[in-house]
Amino acid sequence: MTAPADLEAVELANTAFYETMERGDFDELSDLWLDGDSDVEISCIHPGWPVLTGRGEVLRSYALIMANTEYIQFFLTDVKVALAGDIALVTCTENILSGGPAEESGELGPLVGQLVVATNVFRRTRDGWKLWSHHGSPVLAESDESDEGTDSED
Amino acid sequence: MTAPADLEAVELANTAFYETMERGDFDELSDLWLDGDSDVEISCIHPGWPVLTGRGEVLRSYALIMANTEYIQFFLTDVKVALAGDIALVTCTENILSGGPAEESGELGPLVGQLVVATNVFRRTRDGWKLWSHHGSPVLAESDESDEGTDSED
Repeated sequence: MTAPADLEAVELANTAFYETMERGDFDELSDLWLDGDSDVEISCIHPGWPVLTGRGEVLRSYALIMANTEYIQFFLTDVKVALAGDIALVTCTENILSGGPAEESGELGPLVGQLVVATNVFRRTRDGWKLWSHHGSPVLAESDESDEGTDSED
Repeated sequence: MTAPADLEAVELANTAFYETMERGDFDELSDLWLDGDSDVEISCIHPGWPVLTGRGEVLRSYALIMANTEYIQFFLTDVKVALAGDIALVTCTENILSGGPAEESGELGPLVGQLVVATNVFRRTRDGWKLWSHHGSPVLAESDESDEGTDSED
């Protein structure tokens, strides 16, 4: 039921989403989301943000983020794709390295590392797999991988 | 294309998910998720947690949360349902009031308020709409509703 070609196409769409963010290409990013003709509204939750619904709200948020981001790089790990017909659900860990706009000195702001987990839902369209929903959230505690060996106290 | 009956059924499934958490009914909660026979693995991200994948990991996390929660109540707001065939995507705001287990004194721990936003993906099955994915994340800043009027300094 889940053809390897489908899984690969979804993973490529997921990778393209992050690469487009890295390049700060707003037009290409807009094209990766379901378009306004779709019968479902898109939704997006950035880490720590409330829910954004519809292309207007979602795309404005990306314009804002891109304007305030001088540099951003995503190292994706734990990418998992699940397929049900024309819908694909991807979970992944975004290991993010980013820097804000230059300070008055003209130098790049300090780079900041961030650990975020994401659930990305894609829908198959005539133009390929398009984003229906993105939800990213900060990982505040490593509750998953510290079970082995001695317990740490922190 | 989106029948009102479908939208209503999905919203009921979403409400049932939170009511089951409130009652701490682990068996009923297990039954609300896609079962092991499904061709897709379920996934779950609790606020601040890493990704949990598959029924084993996901249900263990709920057993742990229920064991450490004496009292929990969800006031859902901004519930939005989008339907694409046999898949439904729900976003909502969870206004949570919860309390941990009793302290040594035997009294209920202090109640804590929490603001969480969630993306819940449901899949239509012969037994009704079942959870495929839950992603909850803390709202860390009210970046959405403070744009009008005078800017505050904090």
